Amino acid sequence: MPLTKAKLRELRELGRKKDRDESGHFIVDGVRGVREAIQSRFPVVEVLYTGELLSAEGGDALIRDASHRTRSILQISAREMEQVSGTVTAQGVIAVMQKGQWTSREVLRRDQAGSVIVALDAVADPGNLGSIIRTCDWFGVDALLLGTDSVELYNPKVVRSTVGSIFHLPILVDVDLPSVVAEARDAGYVVYATAADGFVDTDTTQFAGKTLVVLGNEAWGISGPVMQLADRRLAIRRHGSAESLNVGVACGIVLASIRRGSHPHA
Amino acid sequence: MPLTKAKLRELRELGRKKDRDESGHFIVDGVRGVREAIQSRFPVVEVLYTGELLSAEGGDALIRDASHRTRSILQISAREMEQVSGTVTAQGVIAVMQKGQWTSREVLRRDQAGSVIVALDAVADPGNLGSIIRTCDWFGVDALLLGTDSVELYNPKVVRSTVGSIFHLPILVDVDLPSVVAEARDAGYVVYATAADGFVDTDTTQFAGKTLVVLGNEAWGISGPVMQLADRRLAIRRHGSAESLNVGVACGIVLASIRRGSHPHA
Repeated sequence: MPLTKAKLRELRELGRKKDRDESGHFIVDGVRGVREAIQSRFPVVEVLYTGELLSAEGGDALIRDASHRTRSILQISAREMEQVSGTVTAQGVIAVMQKGQWTSREVLRRDQAGSVIVALDAVADPGNLGSIIRTCDWFGVDALLLGTDSVELYNPKVVRSTVGSIFHLPILVDVDLPSVVAEARDAGYVVYATAADGFVDTDTTQFAGKTLVVLGNEAWGISGPVMQLADRRLAIRRHGSAESLNVGVACGIVLASIRRGSHPHA
Repeated sequence: MPLTKAKLRELRELGRKKDRDESGHFIVDGVRGVREAIQSRFPVVEVLYTGELLSAEGGDALIRDASHRTRSILQISAREMEQVSGTVTAQGVIAVMQKGQWTSREVLRRDQAGSVIVALDAVADPGNLGSIIRTCDWFGVDALLLGTDSVELYNPKVVRSTVGSIFHLPILVDVDLPSVVAEARDAGYVVYATAADGFVDTDTTQFAGKTLVVLGNEAWGISGPVMQLADRRLAIRRHGSAESLNVGVACGIVLASIRRGSHPHA
């Protein structure tokens, strides 16, 4: 049975931020993304797939597994899929998911000695945000805070470029960074702001206790009110002549420094 | 005087790889990119600008400086600029540059004790390549080798995303990696291949002497023939659950490890 026009429109409109905001839903596409989605603790609203998926490796199993997470699983035509996903790379399957919900209180009061939190002050590029989420996931970061001026987390480009990592750690959106960073300090976090003119070097710093790392916008760095809350300004030592590093690369280098010498959780 | 149709076509065609290959020229756009270009040792073929540039800060000085590098400086209309650059972000100025020319022999036989070379085996995404070039520049890498299956260096997206770093270090293109990596070993380089299943850890490795780091394709890593030449397989220790790191991020982490404890050249 074809999708009703109203249903088609509803799904297609999840491509727009306004409608994601209103519904509290977002779309994940592709076999790998959908598998991560249904294995996550995020509520699964709906899964839609085409006949093409069933002939793909693991397609059958994916639909079977999805059926344990939602009662709404619909087979649709390839043409409908294209209209809904706005992309031909959806590999015949999408999941409509409910957004994550965390409060800063939950995240900050967990009281783990070696907790690491990353905060992004207005990172603008979807690819950079996706790459940072993967990197945070790789290094076992406990939570990611996205400031109010950050690119939207549930933008399809961001979701796709996280390759499933969006489901692996708490990511708080629309965070009022000055107040939450202050809250983190009260909870015992040492706040490191990455800055080109930083005077604490990632090479030599001993990170200990609870650590909060702030990274800034691609062009103008960290905003004044957030920078003022930093305990230390952190720099990556330069050996050549580039003016700056990509923010995702800087994030990776800082997290590798923080984890240096420590062993993964068992 | 407006550009002739033939001239317009010639410039516009530099947007295509085929024509860049034939002419040996490529385009740099924007005030910052063009400034880096004319300060570089790359031959400057031509600079084209619009009236808009002259009212921008530093625009006058840029044209004056350019006149020391080329005798062909043309003011064109905004419409012509749009046709030539194919982008509205050219900020009223582009430079036509001659491509760099280096041989592996030049790069490998310099005989510097602490030399670091990065080789990319088929990195596909222009943004990743741009970010890797900036990162190599930041860490003072001595040369970058791009394998034959790599995205094209002179692709405008790559050039733009290097933010000038394309001019700061020798970058060899269309490199037959198996033969050049073998050549590097003969010249005394230790070859590290980054691999998810690597058993040498960036955290604990002491890099000494001449170092060549190989990074692979975003999806399938390093190809067999190149992997076989590696002295060591290098891994970045994982603390969470992401399946992989972005290749640009991995590059940054490895280079930061290599430079750890060493001080920038005076």
